[in-house]
Amino acid sequence: MARIFSSFALLALAFSLAIASDHSPLQDFCVADTNNQVVVNGMTCKNASLVQASDFYFSGLHNKGNTSNALGFRVTPVSVTQLPGLNTLGISLARIDYAPFGINPPHTHPRASEILTVVKGSLEVGFVTSNPENRHISKILKRGDVFVFPVNLVHYQRNVGKVNAIAIVGLSSQNPGVIPIGNVVFGSKPDISTDILAKAFQTSDDVISNLQVKF
Amino acid sequence: MARIFSSFALLALAFSLAIASDHSPLQDFCVADTNNQVVVNGMTCKNASLVQASDFYFSGLHNKGNTSNALGFRVTPVSVTQLPGLNTLGISLARIDYAPFGINPPHTHPRASEILTVVKGSLEVGFVTSNPENRHISKILKRGDVFVFPVNLVHYQRNVGKVNAIAIVGLSSQNPGVIPIGNVVFGSKPDISTDILAKAFQTSDDVISNLQVKF
Amino acid sequence: MARIFSSFALLALAFSLAIASDHSPLQDFCVADTNNQVVVNGMTCKNASLVQASDFYFSGLHNKGNTSNALGFRVTPVSVTQLPGLNTLGISLARIDYAPFGINPPHTHPRASEILTVVKGSLEVGFVTSNPENRHISKILKRGDVFVFPVNLVHYQRNVGKVNAIAIVGLSSQNPGVIPIGNVVFGSKPDISTDILAKAFQTSDDVISNLQVKF
Amino acid sequence: MARIFSSFALLALAFSLAIASDHSPLQDFCVADTNNQVVVNGMTCKNASLVQASDFYFSGLHNKGNTSNALGFRVTPVSVTQLPGLNTLGISLARIDYAPFGINPPHTHPRASEILTVVKGSLEVGFVTSNPENRHISKILKRGDVFVFPVNLVHYQRNVGKVNAIAIVGLSSQNPGVIPIGNVVFGSKPDISTDILAKAFQTSDDVISNLQVKF
Amino acid sequence: MARIFSSFALLALAFSLAIASDHSPLQDFCVADTNNQVVVNGMTCKNASLVQASDFYFSGLHNKGNTSNALGFRVTPVSVTQLPGLNTLGISLARIDYAPFGINPPHTHPRASEILTVVKGSLEVGFVTSNPENRHISKILKRGDVFVFPVNLVHYQRNVGKVNAIAIVGLSSQNPGVIPIGNVVFGSKPDISTDILAKAFQTSDDVISNLQVKF
Amino acid sequence: MARIFSSFALLALAFSLAIASDHSPLQDFCVADTNNQVVVNGMTCKNASLVQASDFYFSGLHNKGNTSNALGFRVTPVSVTQLPGLNTLGISLARIDYAPFGINPPHTHPRASEILTVVKGSLEVGFVTSNPENRHISKILKRGDVFVFPVNLVHYQRNVGKVNAIAIVGLSSQNPGVIPIGNVVFGSKPDISTDILAKAFQTSDDVISNLQVKF
Repeated sequence: MARIFSSFALLALAFSLAIASDHSPLQDFCVADTNNQVVVNGMTCKNASLVQASDFYFSGLHNKGNTSNALGFRVTPVSVTQLPGLNTLGISLARIDYAPFGINPPHTHPRASEILTVVKGSLEVGFVTSNPENRHISKILKRGDVFVFPVNLVHYQRNVGKVNAIAIVGLSSQNPGVIPIGNVVFGSKPDISTDILAKAFQTSDDVISNLQVKF
Repeated sequence: MARIFSSFALLALAFSLAIASDHSPLQDFCVADTNNQVVVNGMTCKNASLVQASDFYFSGLHNKGNTSNALGFRVTPVSVTQLPGLNTLGISLARIDYAPFGINPPHTHPRASEILTVVKGSLEVGFVTSNPENRHISKILKRGDVFVFPVNLVHYQRNVGKVNAIAIVGLSSQNPGVIPIGNVVFGSKPDISTDILAKAFQTSDDVISNLQVKF
Repeated sequence: MARIFSSFALLALAFSLAIASDHSPLQDFCVADTNNQVVVNGMTCKNASLVQASDFYFSGLHNKGNTSNALGFRVTPVSVTQLPGLNTLGISLARIDYAPFGINPPHTHPRASEILTVVKGSLEVGFVTSNPENRHISKILKRGDVFVFPVNLVHYQRNVGKVNAIAIVGLSSQNPGVIPIGNVVFGSKPDISTDILAKAFQTSDDVISNLQVKF
Repeated sequence: MARIFSSFALLALAFSLAIASDHSPLQDFCVADTNNQVVVNGMTCKNASLVQASDFYFSGLHNKGNTSNALGFRVTPVSVTQLPGLNTLGISLARIDYAPFGINPPHTHPRASEILTVVKGSLEVGFVTSNPENRHISKILKRGDVFVFPVNLVHYQRNVGKVNAIAIVGLSSQNPGVIPIGNVVFGSKPDISTDILAKAFQTSDDVISNLQVKF
Repeated sequence: MARIFSSFALLALAFSLAIASDHSPLQDFCVADTNNQVVVNGMTCKNASLVQASDFYFSGLHNKGNTSNALGFRVTPVSVTQLPGLNTLGISLARIDYAPFGINPPHTHPRASEILTVVKGSLEVGFVTSNPENRHISKILKRGDVFVFPVNLVHYQRNVGKVNAIAIVGLSSQNPGVIPIGNVVFGSKPDISTDILAKAFQTSDDVISNLQVKF
Repeated sequence: MARIFSSFALLALAFSLAIASDHSPLQDFCVADTNNQVVVNGMTCKNASLVQASDFYFSGLHNKGNTSNALGFRVTPVSVTQLPGLNTLGISLARIDYAPFGINPPHTHPRASEILTVVKGSLEVGFVTSNPENRHISKILKRGDVFVFPVNLVHYQRNVGKVNAIAIVGLSSQNPGVIPIGNVVFGSKPDISTDILAKAFQTSDDVISNLQVKF
């Protein structure tokens, strides 16, 4: 599944080179400086006198993402990695493409709430609250509908139509991050011990091993 | 111009009834309670046991806004007033429709940065930095392009095509607010003294009076 | 598994009655008022003149938690529900008991980082980073060792000794919350569709159904 | 010494009646509602439609404070209690009058940094850093000089001239609070045990008792 | 008008060299290091061992500002540029001088609320709320009066007396910034298109051109 | 008394070499980079690809601290200096050892609330509210009891038993800091003028001089 989230990988790489800032700017702007070797909380800023209109600009959100993968979906993020002017501003966008019956599997965003609008097609969406209620709140959305997923809660979407679907989402961070449950639980590097997961999910080692080979 | 921003008016009314919360939730969610007489910073929360999926939902963003007005544009906001589940989450969306050559006039958002993507047509967009540089950073956008306006800076958009244009924007607040320069400077209730404005803009009382009657 | 986290249930109930505040106090203290019908972000405050020393006090953290359950662990939280004086202060404690080979299964805290120290026994602990790296960082801890789990990342602990183990943890919120992966993905109320989960985890409906009956 | 800080007493009373808000407004303003029985973090807001210009106004900072007390100083605060429009705005002012050789004794502000300018006379000012350095940073100020005391650090001022002195200070909170060392250590209600303080200050019970009767 | 705000220009230059920090210090202090080439959100800190009392000090606020300009006012700021010890502390001061009938024209501060006290003379002050109400709240102030302008709202002052007036203001940021409406709308570099502004203000290109040549 | 808080001294030294970050991480983690010459608010981050499990780990909290000093107590902190992975996470732990009748003298933490649990023995604990109430809230704690000291308020503990006592505390900052009243008031470097303190505490110069030689 790693390929599906590949655009987020560049983000992480960028942060390992030069990271640092905030979601509350302390000057007019702080365009991310991707050439700086100093790593801070967030990202360092480009010299303001070198900033250009292109630093606040990204192109290509009209292009369909490639959904030819096991889950049938693709995220095209416009976060601080793709659009350095977002640094410190606490906002980003993404386009999500869904093949017929494609799903965006259960995941959390560790640093953002998400507001989604359906541009094309029809989606089943839902999130689950924390312990002890674990309440599942879900809805079927059609074109023009909007839904919000509160920060840190596990959520998902599924294309319930026979045609491709498209959503545009806003996220309350310039670097929202994504934690797909399958990837982190069954596909971590290295693996979490099979017997820990077997006990956690109250199943056999075989079931867990079969899940681990998928991720 | 008041009609154009009319959907924001409901927002303000709602806040005068019951206001209070934060952009950092201290529980899973805090759905805005529009029936509460207690007014707080943000909005009070609905009893969690009464919350339903519809509280996180809004319908109608596929509908074209009415741009038959002097400026030729219309904002359809999806803020905490329209979607109470946004309360405390620090995010909202809006659709902007532009008639041919319509403009979204210079304004600020007192509580949000804005990220805009062009869904249809072509837009000229720009913002101006604070004193003393007052640098004007602008760009022509086409379909699929994305641009960010940093929080509190004066910005605008113009449809540069001969057809209707549509943008979807994300804002980093559940209650971003809007301060259109024309409305607040020349259309406040009551008016700012004509001679103050004449001196501020280094022009005659007549010029200012003529502007004041428009707003 | 719901019984294991039962002390957190009271917390959620309390919040559905009266919620509201912040992790940055705007007066000396804001003791949670559990009798207030107004629900806010966080919790409302008790009248300061009625506050007593007992509002800042909790008793019983020396008592062993009951670990007679399928996972062999028990959390005894000291959050704002148990200790109302914690309201707005951004800190809480908990004791965790582990039966031999007991596990605290993979989970996140939506509002807190966690720092753990081993008071008795020996623990295997770990957390997994977000996409795309999903790096698994783990360590074996013995008495007197300390480890930190960054906010929102999936983490777990396992007692690797043949005797009971005890940990004391600090959390960076008065209401940290807990999202056990198994409970929210396979035990939500109502269930997430079996076929969504089967596709998400790239397995069969039977495997998912078997997991769902456990939670 | 309680009389000297008496204007802060009203502040505390107000907060025990109705407290709640933030230093980051989530609407244009949130004028403190001193009649509300609901107590929150900060203060609840007055209904916006009832707000008037007088809510943003305070009169009397040109009046000399009465410095006829043992320390020879007087603080005239303009905090949220005196000026309800300050609620949620994170700022306040105060005037300080000093008799010749009067002192503002060592104290901290639990919620604010302080920037001071000398309007009349000459002051010796200083603050001390935290452990282990306990560095004492001090300066003699004359009219027109400005000095800043970082949040939470112990600081003081002394009039070093033979005439009255006046300072105007800005504070980074609408409710900065004040913790005078003498009052809280030797004048708390009830007293801290004399033998605890004798050991803490490595002196005799008699010395401590003599200090306690002064406060 | 650029000369009038010239002291703010130095501030912006300093930030283009080395910017980065916060309004919540994470150590006792973080004195701005104006020699650092690394640019961050806010400003980097000087090595603490090199910090001196002079870093927390500014001199000259008793000096009258030069009001010989078209508007008849002058701001003397004491922000982080003039007083590096203010870095991360969220507070600053300024002195404003007004010639008879001088005005501080409509402007916003993108990062600060402002509390003003009249030290000499008499001022007419006001601010305007956001859409759709655009309520104009104003007051005549005399010596010793205090008024607050909420963050991000358009506000102004006018000397209504026949003599010079003086105000001292506190601002809730070490780098408040200033956005004078005239300068950013009619004096940006390069200009906003005359026809955009003509449509925005519902007037002719000639009226706009005449305004643009003034700024 | 400086020796007793000696472990905090290393913390301060580290910050004078390289400081900078936040209590709200903008990426998965920001392990403190103690080799960086750039000083920021908080601490800069280690390159993420070089981070190891040991960066999130500390060993030794089971060891008794040396209480052979005048006050009979010892703090063993686990803050960002001892555990670099705590950087930006807003949490830390400490162990406090008390000899029989040992005291942790009156002090504040400028950046943290503190939650304490008694692991062994019995403690008298208390804190004092700000002006004008200066209310002293105290309690006797035994094993398993928990108490919270709100941020910035003066507080203390005393071992009221005849045997050694042990407490574990959580603090709501990775760099809480400590301001012991005796050290900062009577032991600053250089001293605060004896006559200022004599007037502040309404006593003689001799009494103050005798206190100053102890610190």
